Amino acid sequence: MSKKYNVAVVGATGAVGAEMLSTLEERNFPFNDIRPLASERSEGLTVKVKGNSYKVQKLTEQSFDGIDFALFSAGAGRSLEFAPHAVKAGAIVIDNSSAFRMDKDVPLVVPEVNPEALKKHKGIIANPNCSTIQMVVALKPLHDYARIKRIVVSTYQSVSGSGHKAVTELAEQTNKLLTLQEITPKVYSQQIAFNCIPHIDVFLQNGYTKEEMKMENETKKIMDDDSIKVTATTVRVPVFYSHSESVNLEFAKEISPDKARELLSAFSGVVVQDKPVEDLYPMAINAAGRDEVFVGRIRQDFSVKHGLNMWIVSDNIRKGAALNAVQIAEKMI
Amino acid sequence: MSKKYNVAVVGATGAVGAEMLSTLEERNFPFNDIRPLASERSEGLTVKVKGNSYKVQKLTEQSFDGIDFALFSAGAGRSLEFAPHAVKAGAIVIDNSSAFRMDKDVPLVVPEVNPEALKKHKGIIANPNCSTIQMVVALKPLHDYARIKRIVVSTYQSVSGSGHKAVTELAEQTNKLLTLQEITPKVYSQQIAFNCIPHIDVFLQNGYTKEEMKMENETKKIMDDDSIKVTATTVRVPVFYSHSESVNLEFAKEISPDKARELLSAFSGVVVQDKPVEDLYPMAINAAGRDEVFVGRIRQDFSVKHGLNMWIVSDNIRKGAALNAVQIAEKMI
Repeated sequence: MSKKYNVAVVGATGAVGAEMLSTLEERNFPFNDIRPLASERSEGLTVKVKGNSYKVQKLTEQSFDGIDFALFSAGAGRSLEFAPHAVKAGAIVIDNSSAFRMDKDVPLVVPEVNPEALKKHKGIIANPNCSTIQMVVALKPLHDYARIKRIVVSTYQSVSGSGHKAVTELAEQTNKLLTLQEITPKVYSQQIAFNCIPHIDVFLQNGYTKEEMKMENETKKIMDDDSIKVTATTVRVPVFYSHSESVNLEFAKEISPDKARELLSAFSGVVVQDKPVEDLYPMAINAAGRDEVFVGRIRQDFSVKHGLNMWIVSDNIRKGAALNAVQIAEKMI
Repeated sequence: MSKKYNVAVVGATGAVGAEMLSTLEERNFPFNDIRPLASERSEGLTVKVKGNSYKVQKLTEQSFDGIDFALFSAGAGRSLEFAPHAVKAGAIVIDNSSAFRMDKDVPLVVPEVNPEALKKHKGIIANPNCSTIQMVVALKPLHDYARIKRIVVSTYQSVSGSGHKAVTELAEQTNKLLTLQEITPKVYSQQIAFNCIPHIDVFLQNGYTKEEMKMENETKKIMDDDSIKVTATTVRVPVFYSHSESVNLEFAKEISPDKARELLSAFSGVVVQDKPVEDLYPMAINAAGRDEVFVGRIRQDFSVKHGLNMWIVSDNIRKGAALNAVQIAEKMI
């Protein structure tokens, strides 16, 4: 019999945590015990995995005895506090927060892109930001072929990236506005229904948001290439699931749209949807609930030498978070 | 007494036509008679301007007798067919369709940007595409100062650009989805509620949409500078009014974000909203119903020499269409 693993999920009742549990089930991850952990608020709830019920336990420093993999998705604060305890207890931590992503001792991994980085881990492996993951999956085969010099990206990010509460807020706000009721934004500082908010995560001194700088810094780290220039504008749109990205690329050498389609079609985890005459291009509503990164609208950028434009869409909760974390665990076993 | 003008509005019952009539009223345009023209379907309806009712008349070749200004917003086909008759009758045609925009004999005008082009008109003046207008207003003072070499733009366009029907479709589709009813897209080929559609106007052979090529070609013509490189990705989002644009710029010489803010603040028709720490940046819901072009998120692009990123928002029906047309008429008198 092959080995089975004990898996803890920290933040098990959150949007990403719940998706981690169902991803473990769907992918037949060889688990023995599942230990759902959350804050006191969720203590005593039960979650179901493969027909078995598991009681949600309160996250403490002692939560990780006997755990092989601890998947964290409960915010950077909790990761910083509790991941070291999980490591001390002998678990491998796969952390979905931003806490350790830029730490030199922590690999930042997208399994299709840089699996080799896993070898250098010291107990903690970081899951990149959702908007970065889907972009680098689509860029990796193109970078290997023609070396990316510069990326200009504008995002169209769904509310599920902000958790269950934001999904509810979009639905409720939309409903209230359509029935002429007053609304009070809570999760976001602005109305999200029927609006675009050019503001994700907090603003930094340089005028960029943290989300925008994540796309720059994490891309360089995952691609292991500091020479790639990145500039990002990240925007929240009234969509429930899946992030869309308008990505403009400048390469060191010639790469035609046909060549890009060929490389992307052959790359693991990517689906090319690019037949404009049949109205076929990636869209958020079609990517929701799917595992792949969808790429389309691939066309030559005539404004620069060796340029391409493309449109990249993926489910931010799946490939952008839960699936990528479980894939990392799979690579480790 | 100063001169008063007879004004025909072709497509008077459409989203832009109706806005043209209210803009004429709001701006106290010195009109004598108003002649609302439309297809047979709308014949006999009445529209109100400054308290007076005007019967909508069927558009014919004889509709323009005695007319000084004919504002067209009824699609390129109607403009191609009827604008020459209006010119023959002695009217100045201001056309909101794409019919004549790239015609060498037709000035393509945004009054804040290239009023001097009006002098060369031969009866027809073209109103640029909505997404182009708001962009060039924001770019003009920056181009004059530091010369723009390249523009990479991604748009977040509201449904009102597709007329009343699209506004209704977004509202109805949204409501149906929230109450778990089935939907059938009509105005768009795809579901627009809670989705992003990277497809505006028809696809061309080169993989771009007509809307994307308009942004490139019209920008060069209005700025009277073919050396400006432009690449665009245009996207429909579930927003009722106002287009948002993520614009990345590369200049020939140094221009700081502070300098850009100073130049934009001094430019007619622009409002700078750029205090991230106070959550102040342009948003579609705030620009709706306003005349100005709102610019914010101005920041240095560290990925290129002399680069800037910015976020430009404006009401596509007002400055993007009706207001710009009326402003052209004002310049002509």
